Amino acid sequence: MIKVTIIGSGNVAQHLINVFLASAQIELVQVFARKKESVLHLLDFDKIVTAYTDLKEADLYILAVSDGAISTVSSQLPFVNKLVVHTSGNASITALDDKNRKGVFYPLQTFSKNKPIDFSVIPICLETENPTDFQLIDKVAKSISTAVFTINSQQRKALHVAAVFVNNFTNHLYQIGQDICEEHQIPFGILMPLIQETAQKIKTLSPQDAQTGPARRHDETTIQSHENFLTHDNQILIYKILTQSIQNHGKKL
Amino acid sequence: MIKVTIIGSGNVAQHLINVFLASAQIELVQVFARKKESVLHLLDFDKIVTAYTDLKEADLYILAVSDGAISTVSSQLPFVNKLVVHTSGNASITALDDKNRKGVFYPLQTFSKNKPIDFSVIPICLETENPTDFQLIDKVAKSISTAVFTINSQQRKALHVAAVFVNNFTNHLYQIGQDICEEHQIPFGILMPLIQETAQKIKTLSPQDAQTGPARRHDETTIQSHENFLTHDNQILIYKILTQSIQNHGKKL
Ligand SMILES: NC(=O)c1ccc[n+]([C@@H]2O[C@H](COP(=O)([O-])OP(=O)(O)OC[C@H]3O[C@@H](n4cnc5c(N)ncnc54)[C@H](OP(=O)(O)O)[C@@H]3O)[C@@H](O)[C@H]2O)c1
Ligand SMILES: NC(=O)c1ccc[n+]([C@@H]2O[C@H](COP(=O)([O-])OP(=O)(O)OC[C@H]3O[C@@H](n4cnc5c(N)ncnc54)[C@H](OP(=O)(O)O)[C@@H]3O)[C@@H](O)[C@H]2O)c1
Repeated sequence: MIKVTIIGSGNVAQHLINVFLASAQIELVQVFARKKESVLHLLDFDKIVTAYTDLKEADLYILAVSDGAISTVSSQLPFVNKLVVHTSGNASITALDDKNRKGVFYPLQTFSKNKPIDFSVIPICLETENPTDFQLIDKVAKSISTAVFTINSQQRKALHVAAVFVNNFTNHLYQIGQDICEEHQIPFGILMPLIQETAQKIKTLSPQDAQTGPARRHDETTIQSHENFLTHDNQILIYKILTQSIQNHGKKL
Repeated sequence: MIKVTIIGSGNVAQHLINVFLASAQIELVQVFARKKESVLHLLDFDKIVTAYTDLKEADLYILAVSDGAISTVSSQLPFVNKLVVHTSGNASITALDDKNRKGVFYPLQTFSKNKPIDFSVIPICLETENPTDFQLIDKVAKSISTAVFTINSQQRKALHVAAVFVNNFTNHLYQIGQDICEEHQIPFGILMPLIQETAQKIKTLSPQDAQTGPARRHDETTIQSHENFLTHDNQILIYKILTQSIQNHGKKL
Protein backbone atom coordinates (compact mmCIF):
# COMPACT_ATOMS: atom_id res chain seq x y z
CA MET A 1 0.00 0.00 0.00
CA ILE A 2 1.23 3.47 -0.86
CA LYS A 3 0.97 5.88 2.06
CA VAL A 4 -0.61 9.18 1.05
CA THR A 5 -1.35 12.29 3.10
CA ILE A 6 -3.54 15.14 1.87
CA ILE A 7 -2.99 18.75 2.88
CA GLY A 8 -6.10 20.84 2.34
CA SER A 9 -9.83 20.40 2.82
CA GLY A 10 -11.46 22.10 -0.16
CA ASN A 11 -13.13 20.77 -3.32
CA VAL A 12 -10.18 18.82 -4.66
CA ALA A 13 -9.05 17.54 -1.26
CA GLN A 14 -12.52 16.17 -0.49
CA HIS A 15 -12.81 14.36 -3.81
CA LEU A 16 -9.32 12.88 -3.36
CA ILE A 17 -10.14 11.76 0.19
CA ASN A 18 -13.19 9.87 -1.07
CA VAL A 19 -11.42 8.19 -3.93
CA PHE A 20 -8.32 7.23 -1.89
CA LEU A 21 -10.45 5.79 0.90
CA ALA A 22 -12.08 3.57 -1.72
CA SER A 23 -8.78 2.47 -3.28
CA ALA A 24 -7.21 -0.84 -2.26
CA GLN A 25 -3.73 0.30 -3.25
CA ILE A 26 -3.67 3.51 -1.21
CA GLU A 27 -3.49 4.01 2.53
CA LEU A 28 -4.74 7.47 3.40
CA VAL A 29 -2.51 8.29 6.39
CA GLN A 30 -3.75 11.74 7.39
CA VAL A 31 -5.54 14.84 6.19
CA PHE A 32 -4.41 18.31 7.23
CA ALA A 33 -7.35 20.74 7.55
CA ARG A 34 -7.33 24.17 9.10
CA LYS A 35 -10.79 23.41 10.42
CA LYS A 36 -11.46 19.76 11.37
CA GLU A 37 -15.20 20.17 10.72
CA SER A 38 -14.63 20.64 7.02
CA VAL A 39 -13.72 16.97 6.46
CA LEU A 40 -15.22 15.29 9.53
CA HIS A 41 -18.11 13.93 7.42
CA LEU A 42 -15.58 12.05 5.30
CA LEU A 43 -13.13 10.37 7.67
CA ASP A 44 -12.20 9.47 11.26
CA PHE A 45 -11.52 12.27 13.71
CA ASP A 46 -8.05 10.96 14.58
CA LYS A 47 -6.86 11.02 10.97
CA ILE A 48 -7.45 14.76 10.73
CA VAL A 49 -4.64 17.06 11.91
CA THR A 50 -4.69 20.83 12.26
CA ALA A 51 -0.97 21.38 12.95
CA TYR A 52 1.77 20.62 10.44
CA THR A 53 3.91 19.26 13.31
CA ASP A 54 1.40 16.42 13.75
CA LEU A 55 2.01 15.09 10.23
CA LYS A 56 3.29 11.50 10.17
CA GLU A 57 5.53 9.68 7.72
CA ALA A 58 4.04 9.12 4.24
CA ASP A 59 5.28 8.23 0.75
CA LEU A 60 3.48 11.17 -0.80
CA TYR A 61 2.08 14.49 0.44
CA ILE A 62 -0.57 16.00 -1.84
CA LEU A 63 -1.06 19.75 -1.38
CA ALA A 64 -4.62 20.48 -2.50
CA VAL A 65 -4.63 24.11 -1.37
CA SER A 66 -5.42 27.34 -3.22
CA ASP A 67 -2.83 28.28 -5.83
CA GLY A 68 -1.72 31.28 -3.81
CA ALA A 69 -1.07 29.14 -0.71
CA ILE A 70 1.16 26.51 -2.36
CA SER A 71 4.43 28.36 -1.60
CA THR A 72 3.61 29.25 2.00
CA VAL A 73 2.15 25.87 2.93
CA SER A 74 4.98 23.90 1.30
CA SER A 75 7.57 25.99 3.16
CA GLN A 76 5.76 25.42 6.47
CA LEU A 77 6.03 21.64 6.24
CA PRO A 78 8.25 20.43 9.13
CA PHE A 79 10.17 17.80 7.11
CA VAL A 80 12.68 17.64 4.23
CA ASN A 81 13.45 15.33 1.26
CA LYS A 82 9.91 13.93 1.10
CA LEU A 83 7.83 13.85 -2.07
CA VAL A 84 5.41 16.80 -2.10
CA VAL A 85 3.10 17.52 -5.04
CA HIS A 86 0.51 20.20 -5.72
CA THR A 87 -2.76 19.77 -7.65
CA SER A 88 -2.83 23.04 -9.57
CA GLY A 89 -3.23 23.47 -13.31
CA ASN A 90 -1.76 26.91 -13.31
CA ALA A 91 1.07 26.89 -10.74
CA SER A 92 4.54 25.79 -11.84
CA ILE A 93 6.25 22.87 -10.16
CA THR A 94 8.72 25.46 -8.81
CA ALA A 95 5.99 27.03 -6.67
CA LEU A 96 6.79 24.25 -4.17
CA ASP A 97 9.50 24.80 -1.56
CA ASP A 98 12.93 23.38 -2.48
CA LYS A 99 13.41 21.53 0.80
CA ASN A 100 11.27 18.61 -0.43
CA ARG A 101 11.17 16.63 -3.72
CA LYS A 102 8.64 18.31 -5.98
CA GLY A 103 5.89 17.12 -8.28
CA VAL A 104 2.48 17.91 -9.73
CA PHE A 105 -0.68 15.80 -9.59
CA TYR A 106 -3.25 17.81 -11.56
CA PRO A 107 -6.72 16.31 -12.04
CA LEU A 108 -8.16 18.03 -15.13
CA GLN A 109 -11.77 18.39 -14.12
CA THR A 110 -14.12 20.92 -12.56
CA PHE A 111 -15.02 19.88 -9.03
CA SER A 112 -17.91 21.03 -6.88
CA LYS A 113 -18.06 19.83 -3.30
CA ASN A 114 -21.55 18.34 -3.48
CA LYS A 115 -21.49 16.82 -6.93
CA PRO A 116 -20.08 13.26 -6.96
CA ILE A 117 -17.78 12.50 -9.86
CA ASP A 118 -16.54 9.36 -11.55
CA PHE A 119 -12.81 9.72 -10.91
CA SER A 120 -11.86 6.78 -13.08
CA VAL A 121 -12.20 8.80 -16.29
CA ILE A 122 -10.63 12.03 -15.06
CA PRO A 123 -7.34 12.85 -16.80
CA ILE A 124 -4.54 13.18 -14.25
CA CYS A 125 -1.54 15.20 -15.42
CA LEU A 126 1.73 14.26 -13.77
CA GLU A 127 5.12 15.93 -13.48
CA THR A 128 8.10 15.24 -11.21
CA GLU A 129 11.76 16.17 -11.10
CA ASN A 130 13.03 12.59 -11.18
CA PRO A 131 11.93 9.21 -12.59
CA THR A 132 11.60 7.39 -9.25
CA ASP A 133 9.18 9.97 -7.95
CA PHE A 134 7.33 9.77 -11.25
CA GLN A 135 6.89 6.02 -10.86
CA LEU A 136 5.33 6.54 -7.46
CA ILE A 137 2.78 9.20 -8.41
CA ASP A 138 2.07 7.32 -11.62
CA LYS A 139 1.06 4.30 -9.49
CA VAL A 140 -1.10 6.49 -7.27
CA ALA A 141 -2.77 8.14 -10.28
CA LYS A 142 -3.38 4.80 -12.00
CA SER A 143 -4.95 3.41 -8.86
CA ILE A 144 -7.77 5.95 -9.21
CA SER A 145 -7.92 6.82 -12.94
CA THR A 146 -7.48 5.18 -16.32
CA ALA A 147 -6.42 8.47 -17.96
CA VAL A 148 -2.93 9.34 -16.72
CA PHE A 149 -0.69 11.72 -18.69
CA THR A 150 2.87 13.04 -18.47
CA ILE A 151 2.52 16.79 -18.84
CA ASN A 152 5.28 19.34 -18.24
CA SER A 153 4.66 22.73 -16.61
CA GLN A 154 4.41 24.58 -19.94
CA GLN A 155 1.88 22.08 -21.32
CA ARG A 156 -0.05 22.11 -18.08
CA LYS A 157 -0.35 25.87 -18.33
CA ALA A 158 -1.61 25.50 -21.91
CA LEU A 159 -4.16 22.96 -20.69
CA HIS A 160 -5.26 25.26 -17.92
CA VAL A 161 -5.85 28.12 -20.36
CA ALA A 162 -7.67 25.76 -22.76
CA ALA A 163 -9.79 24.60 -19.83
CA VAL A 164 -10.84 28.19 -19.15
CA PHE A 165 -12.15 28.39 -22.73
CA VAL A 166 -14.00 25.05 -22.80
CA ASN A 167 -15.27 25.21 -19.23
CA ASN A 168 -15.51 28.71 -17.69
CA PHE A 169 -16.22 30.55 -20.93
CA THR A 170 -18.60 27.89 -22.23
CA ASN A 171 -20.54 28.11 -18.98
CA HIS A 172 -20.75 31.86 -19.46
CA LEU A 173 -22.27 31.31 -22.91
CA TYR A 174 -24.88 29.11 -21.20
CA GLN A 175 -25.45 32.08 -18.88
CA ILE A 176 -26.05 34.41 -21.82
CA GLY A 177 -28.42 31.83 -23.33
CA GLN A 178 -30.34 31.85 -20.07
CA ASP A 179 -30.39 35.67 -19.92
CA ILE A 180 -31.85 35.86 -23.44
CA CYS A 181 -34.49 33.24 -22.58
CA GLU A 182 -35.53 35.04 -19.40
CA GLU A 183 -35.78 38.35 -21.21
CA HIS A 184 -38.35 36.74 -23.54
CA GLN A 185 -40.23 34.62 -20.96
CA ILE A 186 -38.90 31.33 -22.32
CA PRO A 187 -37.91 28.51 -19.93
CA PHE A 188 -34.11 27.95 -20.16
CA GLY A 189 -34.71 24.19 -20.08
CA ILE A 190 -35.79 24.34 -23.71
CA LEU A 191 -32.10 24.84 -24.62
CA MET A 192 -30.92 21.86 -22.57
CA PRO A 193 -31.06 19.15 -25.30
CA LEU A 194 -29.13 21.47 -27.63
CA ILE A 195 -26.48 22.14 -24.98
CA GLN A 196 -26.07 18.42 -24.34
CA GLU A 197 -25.97 17.53 -28.04
CA THR A 198 -23.34 20.23 -28.69
CA ALA A 199 -21.07 18.58 -26.12
CA GLN A 200 -21.91 15.05 -27.33
CA LYS A 201 -21.17 15.85 -30.97
CA ILE A 202 -17.59 16.68 -30.18
CA LYS A 203 -17.01 13.07 -29.11
CA THR A 204 -17.31 11.90 -32.72
CA LEU A 205 -16.74 15.04 -34.82
CA SER A 206 -13.82 17.50 -34.69
CA PRO A 207 -14.82 21.06 -33.65
CA GLN A 208 -14.06 22.04 -37.25
CA ASP A 209 -16.56 19.51 -38.65
CA ALA A 210 -19.12 20.15 -35.93
CA GLN A 211 -19.18 23.91 -36.55
CA THR A 212 -22.54 25.07 -37.95
CA GLY A 213 -24.55 28.28 -37.86
CA PRO A 214 -24.79 31.65 -39.57
CA ALA A 215 -21.14 32.60 -38.92
CA ARG A 216 -19.84 29.41 -40.50
CA ARG A 217 -22.24 29.75 -43.46
CA HIS A 218 -21.30 33.44 -43.84
CA ASP A 219 -25.04 34.10 -43.71
CA GLU A 220 -24.76 37.87 -43.30
CA THR A 221 -28.53 38.46 -43.34
CA THR A 222 -29.06 36.27 -40.27
CA ILE A 223 -25.97 37.66 -38.53
CA GLN A 224 -27.25 41.20 -39.04
CA SER A 225 -30.75 40.28 -37.87
CA HIS A 226 -29.31 38.67 -34.71
CA GLU A 227 -27.16 41.69 -33.93
CA ASN A 228 -30.16 43.98 -34.38
CA PHE A 229 -32.25 41.73 -32.17
CA LEU A 230 -29.85 41.77 -29.21
CA THR A 231 -30.30 44.70 -26.84
CA HIS A 232 -27.32 44.38 -24.48
CA ASP A 233 -24.09 45.94 -25.77
CA ASN A 234 -22.09 43.24 -24.06
CA GLN A 235 -24.00 40.44 -25.82
CA ILE A 236 -23.65 42.25 -29.17
CA LEU A 237 -19.89 42.60 -28.65
CA ILE A 238 -19.49 38.89 -27.85
CA TYR A 239 -21.70 37.98 -30.81
CA LYS A 240 -19.55 40.07 -33.18
CA ILE A 241 -16.17 38.89 -31.83
CA LEU A 242 -17.07 35.19 -31.87
CA THR A 243 -18.72 35.43 -35.30
CA GLN A 244 -15.56 37.05 -36.67
CA SER A 245 -13.40 34.46 -34.99
CA ILE A 246 -15.39 31.60 -36.57
CA GLN A 247 -15.19 33.28 -39.97
CA ASN A 248 -11.45 33.90 -39.74
CA HIS A 249 -10.62 30.52 -38.27
CA GLY A 250 -8.11 28.57 -40.27
CA LYS A 251 -6.95 31.68 -42.11
CA LYS A 252 -4.30 32.62 -39.60
CA LEU A 253 -3.50 29.36 -37.84
CA MET B 1 -53.68 9.02 -39.29
CA ILE B 2 -52.56 12.56 -40.02
CA LYS B 3 -51.32 12.96 -43.59
CA VAL B 4 -48.01 14.81 -43.75
CA THR B 5 -45.90 15.80 -46.77
CA ILE B 6 -42.34 17.06 -46.47
CA ILE B 7 -40.84 19.57 -48.91
CA GLY B 8 -37.04 19.46 -48.81
CA SER B 9 -34.38 16.79 -48.57
CA GLY B 10 -31.67 18.26 -46.31
CA ASN B 11 -30.69 17.62 -42.70
CA VAL B 12 -34.00 18.44 -41.10
CA ALA B 13 -36.11 16.83 -43.85
CA GLN B 14 -34.20 13.55 -43.55
CA HIS B 15 -34.57 13.39 -39.76
CA LEU B 16 -38.29 14.17 -40.06
CA ILE B 17 -38.75 11.50 -42.73
CA ASN B 18 -37.23 8.89 -40.44
CA VAL B 19 -39.24 9.83 -37.42
CA PHE B 20 -42.56 10.13 -39.30
CA LEU B 21 -42.05 6.77 -40.98
CA ALA B 22 -41.67 5.27 -37.51
CA SER B 23 -44.74 7.01 -36.09
CA ALA B 24 -48.06 5.14 -35.94
CA GLN B 25 -50.07 8.35 -35.94
CA ILE B 26 -48.55 9.88 -39.07
CA GLU B 27 -48.89 8.87 -42.70
CA LEU B 28 -45.99 10.28 -44.69
CA VAL B 29 -47.72 10.97 -48.02
CA GLN B 30 -44.85 12.32 -50.12
CA VAL B 31 -41.47 13.99 -50.02
CA PHE B 32 -40.53 16.73 -52.48
CA ALA B 33 -36.81 16.62 -53.32
CA ARG B 34 -35.07 18.50 -56.11
CA LYS B 35 -32.90 15.40 -56.54
CA LYS B 36 -34.59 12.04 -55.90
CA GLU B 37 -31.25 10.45 -54.97
CA SER B 38 -30.93 12.57 -51.86
CA VAL B 39 -33.71 10.69 -50.03
CA LEU B 40 -33.87 7.41 -51.95
CA HIS B 41 -32.05 5.60 -49.12
CA LEU B 42 -34.89 6.57 -46.78
CA LEU B 43 -38.16 5.84 -48.59
CA ASP B 44 -39.90 4.31 -51.62
CA PHE B 45 -39.15 5.73 -55.04
CA ASP B 46 -42.83 6.46 -55.77
CA LYS B 47 -43.25 8.60 -52.68
CA ILE B 48 -40.59 11.04 -53.86
CA VAL B 49 -41.67 13.85 -56.19
CA THR B 50 -39.53 16.38 -57.99
CA ALA B 51 -42.30 18.63 -59.33
CA TYR B 52 -44.63 20.67 -57.12
CA THR B 53 -47.51 19.80 -59.47
CA ASP B 54 -47.17 16.15 -58.42
CA LEU B 55 -47.95 16.93 -54.79
CA LYS B 56 -51.04 15.15 -53.49
CA GLU B 57 -53.57 16.11 -50.85
CA ALA B 58 -52.22 16.20 -47.26
CA ASP B 59 -53.28 17.65 -43.90
CA LEU B 60 -49.93 19.33 -43.42
CA TYR B 61 -47.05 20.39 -45.67
CA ILE B 62 -43.74 20.86 -43.85
CA LEU B 63 -41.24 23.06 -45.67
CA ALA B 64 -37.79 21.97 -44.48
CA VAL B 65 -35.86 24.13 -46.93
CA SER B 66 -33.12 26.71 -46.42
CA ASP B 67 -34.32 29.92 -44.73
CA GLY B 68 -33.72 31.89 -47.92
CA ALA B 69 -35.90 29.52 -49.97
CA ILE B 70 -39.01 29.58 -47.73
CA SER B 71 -40.66 32.47 -49.58
CA THR B 72 -39.97 31.20 -53.10
CA VAL B 73 -40.89 27.60 -52.42
CA SER B 74 -44.09 28.48 -50.54
CA SER B 75 -45.21 30.72 -53.40
CA GLN B 76 -44.52 27.96 -55.94
CA LEU B 77 -46.90 25.51 -54.27
CA PRO B 78 -49.76 24.78 -56.70
CA PHE B 79 -52.55 24.79 -54.09
CA VAL B 80 -54.28 27.26 -51.76
CA ASN B 81 -55.83 27.24 -48.26
CA LYS B 82 -53.78 24.25 -47.08
CA LEU B 83 -51.70 24.24 -43.89
CA VAL B 84 -48.05 24.96 -44.71
CA VAL B 85 -45.39 25.31 -42.00
CA HIS B 86 -41.66 26.01 -42.11
CA THR B 87 -39.04 24.59 -39.73
CA SER B 88 -36.82 27.64 -39.26
CA GLY B 89 -35.74 29.18 -35.98
CA ASN B 90 -34.96 32.50 -37.55
CA ALA B 91 -37.59 33.09 -40.25
CA SER B 92 -40.86 34.74 -39.28
CA ILE B 93 -44.16 32.98 -39.88
CA THR B 94 -44.80 35.73 -42.47
CA ALA B 95 -42.01 34.42 -44.68
CA LEU B 96 -44.58 31.92 -45.95
CA ASP B 97 -46.81 32.85 -48.88
CA ASP B 98 -50.28 34.16 -47.94
CA LYS B 99 -52.16 31.84 -50.25
CA ASN B 100 -51.97 28.99 -47.71
CA ARG B 101 -52.57 28.81 -43.93
CA LYS B 102 -49.26 29.46 -42.21
CA GLY B 103 -47.43 27.92 -39.28
CA VAL B 104 -44.04 27.09 -37.82
CA PHE B 105 -42.74 23.70 -36.68
CA TYR B 106 -39.24 24.45 -35.34
CA PRO B 107 -37.25 21.55 -33.86
CA LEU B 108 -34.69 23.17 -31.54
CA GLN B 109 -31.70 20.93 -32.12
CA THR B 110 -28.55 20.78 -34.21
CA PHE B 111 -28.88 18.13 -36.91
CA SER B 112 -26.19 16.43 -38.93
CA LYS B 113 -27.25 14.07 -41.70
CA ASN B 114 -25.27 11.08 -40.48
CA LYS B 115 -25.76 11.39 -36.77
CA PRO B 116 -28.91 9.65 -35.51
CA ILE B 117 -30.81 11.57 -32.89
CA ASP B 118 -33.42 10.71 -30.26
CA PHE B 119 -36.28 12.88 -31.48
CA SER B 120 -38.48 12.18 -28.48
CA VAL B 121 -36.60 14.68 -26.31
CA ILE B 122 -36.18 17.42 -28.90
CA PRO B 123 -38.12 20.60 -28.08
CA ILE B 124 -40.52 21.44 -30.91
CA CYS B 125 -41.62 25.07 -31.04
CA LEU B 126 -45.03 25.64 -32.60
CA GLU B 127 -46.81 28.68 -33.99
CA THR B 128 -49.92 29.01 -36.17
CA GLU B 129 -52.36 31.73 -37.13
CA ASN B 130 -55.45 29.94 -35.81
CA PRO B 131 -56.32 27.44 -33.04
CA THR B 132 -57.53 24.63 -35.32
CA ASP B 133 -54.25 24.56 -37.20
CA PHE B 134 -52.45 24.68 -33.87
CA GLN B 135 -54.30 21.57 -32.68
CA LEU B 136 -53.20 19.72 -35.77
CA ILE B 137 -49.49 20.52 -35.62
CA ASP B 138 -49.57 20.04 -31.85
CA LYS B 139 -50.78 16.46 -32.47
CA VAL B 140 -48.08 15.90 -35.07
CA ALA B 141 -45.39 17.30 -32.76
CA LYS B 142 -46.58 15.24 -29.79
CA SER B 143 -46.54 12.09 -31.91
CA ILE B 144 -42.76 12.43 -32.20
CA SER B 145 -41.64 14.43 -29.13
CA THR B 146 -42.49 14.83 -25.48
CA ALA B 147 -41.24 18.43 -25.44
CA VAL B 148 -43.69 20.59 -27.38
CA PHE B 149 -43.87 24.36 -26.80
CA THR B 150 -46.01 27.26 -28.00
CA ILE B 151 -43.51 29.90 -29.10
CA ASN B 152 -44.34 33.08 -31.02
CA SER B 153 -42.11 34.51 -33.75
CA GLN B 154 -40.39 37.00 -31.42
CA GLN B 155 -39.63 34.30 -28.84
CA ARG B 156 -38.47 31.92 -31.55
CA LYS B 157 -36.03 34.54 -32.76
CA ALA B 158 -34.75 34.95 -29.19
CA LEU B 159 -34.34 31.17 -28.96
CA HIS B 160 -32.48 31.11 -32.25
CA VAL B 161 -30.04 33.77 -31.07
CA ALA B 162 -29.62 31.99 -27.72
CA ALA B 163 -28.96 28.77 -29.64
CA VAL B 164 -26.13 30.48 -31.52
CA PHE B 165 -24.50 31.28 -28.17
CA VAL B 166 -24.91 27.86 -26.55
CA ASN B 167 -24.26 25.82 -29.70
CA ASN B 168 -22.27 27.59 -32.44
CA PHE B 169 -20.21 29.77 -30.13
CA THR B 170 -19.64 27.00 -27.59
CA ASN B 171 -18.39 24.76 -30.37
CA HIS B 172 -15.98 27.51 -31.38
CA LEU B 173 -14.62 27.61 -27.82
CA TYR B 174 -14.00 23.86 -28.18
CA GLN B 175 -12.14 24.74 -31.38
CA ILE B 176 -9.93 27.21 -29.54
CA GLY B 177 -9.30 24.60 -26.85
CA GLN B 178 -8.17 22.21 -29.56
CA ASP B 179 -5.96 24.87 -31.19
CA ILE B 180 -4.21 25.55 -27.89
CA CYS B 181 -3.70 21.82 -27.28
CA GLU B 182 -2.24 21.26 -30.75
CA GLU B 183 0.12 24.19 -30.37
CA HIS B 184 1.55 22.48 -27.29
CA GLN B 185 1.50 18.87 -28.54
CA ILE B 186 -1.27 17.81 -26.19
CA PRO B 187 -4.03 15.42 -27.36
CA PHE B 188 -7.36 17.30 -27.45
CA GLY B 189 -9.08 14.22 -25.96
CA ILE B 190 -7.63 15.14 -22.58
CA LEU B 191 -10.18 17.98 -22.42
CA MET B 192 -13.14 15.73 -23.25
CA PRO B 193 -14.23 14.79 -19.70
CA LEU B 194 -14.12 18.49 -18.75
CA ILE B 195 -16.24 19.45 -21.77
CA GLN B 196 -18.80 16.77 -20.94
CA GLU B 197 -18.89 17.65 -17.23
CA THR B 198 -19.38 21.35 -18.05
CA ALA B 199 -22.50 20.46 -20.04
CA GLN B 200 -23.68 17.92 -17.43
CA LYS B 201 -23.33 20.37 -14.54
CA ILE B 202 -25.87 22.71 -16.06
CA LYS B 203 -28.53 20.04 -15.68
CA THR B 204 -28.49 20.47 -11.91
CA LEU B 205 -26.88 23.87 -11.30
CA SER B 206 -27.83 27.25 -12.79
CA PRO B 207 -25.12 28.81 -15.00
CA GLN B 208 -24.67 31.37 -12.22
CA ASP B 209 -23.93 28.69 -9.62
CA ALA B 210 -21.84 26.58 -12.01
CA GLN B 211 -19.55 29.49 -12.91
CA THR B 212 -16.00 28.93 -11.66
CA GLY B 213 -12.54 30.02 -12.76
CA PRO B 214 -10.18 32.98 -12.50
CA ALA B 215 -12.66 35.52 -13.93
CA ARG B 216 -15.34 34.60 -11.39
CA ARG B 217 -12.79 34.62 -8.53
CA HIS B 218 -11.39 37.96 -9.77
CA ASP B 219 -8.00 36.24 -9.65
CA GLU B 220 -6.12 38.94 -11.56
CA THR B 221 -2.72 37.19 -11.27
CA THR B 222 -3.98 34.11 -13.11
CA ILE B 223 -5.91 36.19 -15.67
CA GLN B 224 -2.76 38.18 -16.42
CA SER B 225 -0.62 35.06 -16.68
CA HIS B 226 -3.15 33.48 -19.10
CA GLU B 227 -3.24 36.59 -21.28
CA ASN B 228 0.57 36.67 -21.37
CA PHE B 229 0.68 32.97 -22.22
CA LEU B 230 -1.64 33.23 -25.25
CA THR B 231 0.10 34.12 -28.50
CA HIS B 232 -2.81 34.68 -30.92
CA ASP B 233 -4.35 38.17 -30.77
CA ASN B 234 -7.75 36.72 -31.52
CA GLN B 235 -7.57 34.30 -28.56
CA ILE B 236 -6.36 37.11 -26.29
CA LEU B 237 -9.27 39.33 -27.39
CA ILE B 238 -11.83 36.59 -26.72
CA TYR B 239 -10.18 35.84 -23.35
CA LYS B 240 -10.41 39.50 -22.31
CA ILE B 241 -13.99 40.06 -23.53
CA LEU B 242 -15.39 36.91 -21.91
CA THR B 243 -13.46 37.50 -18.67
CA GLN B 244 -14.88 41.02 -18.49
CA SER B 245 -18.36 39.75 -19.28
CA ILE B 246 -18.17 37.19 -16.44
CA GLN B 247 -16.92 39.85 -14.04
CA ASN B 248 -19.61 42.36 -14.97
CA HIS B 249 -22.42 39.83 -15.10
CA GLY B 250 -25.35 40.68 -12.86
CA LYS B 251 -24.23 44.29 -12.54
CA LYS B 252 -26.15 45.52 -15.54
CA LEU B 253 -28.95 42.97 -15.96
N1 LIG C 1 -11.79 23.13 -8.08
C1 LIG C 1 -11.37 22.59 -9.20
O1 LIG C 1 -12.21 22.34 -10.08
C2 LIG C 1 -9.92 22.25 -9.41
C3 LIG C 1 -9.59 21.37 -10.43
C4 LIG C 1 -8.24 21.00 -10.62
C5 LIG C 1 -7.26 21.55 -9.80
N2 LIG C 1 -7.61 22.45 -8.82
C6 LIG C 1 -6.52 22.97 -7.98
O2 LIG C 1 -6.55 22.30 -6.72
C7 LIG C 1 -6.12 23.20 -5.67
C8 LIG C 1 -7.22 23.31 -4.64
O3 LIG C 1 -8.39 23.80 -5.27
P1 LIG C 1 -9.82 23.66 -4.61
O4 LIG C 1 -10.82 23.85 -5.69
O5 LIG C 1 -9.88 22.43 -3.78
O6 LIG C 1 -9.85 24.97 -3.69
P2 LIG C 1 -10.81 25.28 -2.46
O7 LIG C 1 -12.03 24.43 -2.49
O8 LIG C 1 -10.95 26.75 -2.43
O9 LIG C 1 -9.94 24.81 -1.22
C9 LIG C 1 -8.71 25.45 -0.93
C10 LIG C 1 -8.10 24.79 0.26
O10 LIG C 1 -6.85 25.44 0.51
C11 LIG C 1 -6.80 25.75 1.90
N3 LIG C 1 -5.94 26.90 2.11
C12 LIG C 1 -6.00 28.11 1.49
N4 LIG C 1 -5.03 28.94 1.94
C13 LIG C 1 -4.35 28.22 2.88
C14 LIG C 1 -3.23 28.50 3.73
N5 LIG C 1 -2.61 29.68 3.70
N6 LIG C 1 -2.82 27.53 4.56
C15 LIG C 1 -3.43 26.34 4.59
N7 LIG C 1 -4.47 26.00 3.80
C16 LIG C 1 -4.92 26.93 2.97
C17 LIG C 1 -8.23 26.02 2.26
O11 LIG C 1 -8.40 25.93 3.65
P3 LIG C 1 -9.66 26.62 4.36
O12 LIG C 1 -10.86 25.82 3.90
O13 LIG C 1 -9.37 26.46 5.80
O14 LIG C 1 -9.71 28.05 3.89
C18 LIG C 1 -8.93 24.90 1.53
O15 LIG C 1 -8.84 23.71 2.24
C19 LIG C 1 -5.78 24.52 -6.37
O16 LIG C 1 -4.40 24.52 -6.69
C20 LIG C 1 -6.61 24.44 -7.65
O17 LIG C 1 -6.04 25.23 -8.68
C21 LIG C 1 -8.92 22.79 -8.61
N1 LIG D 1 -29.74 21.91 -39.51
C1 LIG D 1 -30.23 22.21 -38.34
O1 LIG D 1 -29.60 21.89 -37.34
C2 LIG D 1 -31.58 22.90 -38.21
C3 LIG D 1 -32.24 22.85 -36.97
C4 LIG D 1 -33.49 23.44 -36.84
C5 LIG D 1 -34.09 24.07 -37.93
N2 LIG D 1 -33.42 24.14 -39.12
C6 LIG D 1 -34.11 24.82 -40.23
O2 LIG D 1 -34.64 23.84 -41.10
C7 LIG D 1 -34.60 24.30 -42.46
C8 LIG D 1 -33.79 23.34 -43.32
O3 LIG D 1 -32.49 23.27 -42.77
P1 LIG D 1 -31.49 22.07 -43.12
O4 LIG D 1 -30.44 22.07 -42.09
O5 LIG D 1 -32.27 20.85 -43.36
O6 LIG D 1 -30.86 22.63 -44.48
P2 LIG D 1 -30.05 21.81 -45.59
O7 LIG D 1 -29.56 20.52 -45.04
O8 LIG D 1 -29.11 22.77 -46.17
O9 LIG D 1 -31.20 21.49 -46.66
C9 LIG D 1 -31.85 22.53 -47.34
C10 LIG D 1 -32.91 21.96 -48.23
O10 LIG D 1 -33.56 23.04 -48.88
C11 LIG D 1 -33.60 22.75 -50.27
N3 LIG D 1 -33.64 23.99 -51.03
C12 LIG D 1 -32.81 25.06 -50.95
N4 LIG D 1 -33.18 26.01 -51.83
C13 LIG D 1 -34.26 25.52 -52.48
C14 LIG D 1 -35.11 26.04 -53.51
N5 LIG D 1 -34.91 27.26 -54.03
N6 LIG D 1 -36.12 25.26 -53.94
C15 LIG D 1 -36.33 24.04 -53.41
N7 LIG D 1 -35.59 23.51 -52.45
C16 LIG D 1 -34.56 24.25 -51.98
C17 LIG D 1 -32.36 21.96 -50.53
O11 LIG D 1 -32.46 21.26 -51.71
P3 LIG D 1 -31.13 20.73 -52.47
O12 LIG D 1 -30.57 19.65 -51.57
O13 LIG D 1 -31.66 20.23 -53.75
O14 LIG D 1 -30.21 21.93 -52.59
C18 LIG D 1 -32.36 21.05 -49.31
O15 LIG D 1 -33.21 19.98 -49.48
C19 LIG D 1 -34.02 25.71 -42.41
O16 LIG D 1 -35.08 26.63 -42.30
C20 LIG D 1 -33.23 25.70 -41.10
O17 LIG D 1 -33.10 26.99 -40.55
C21 LIG D 1 -32.19 23.56 -39.29
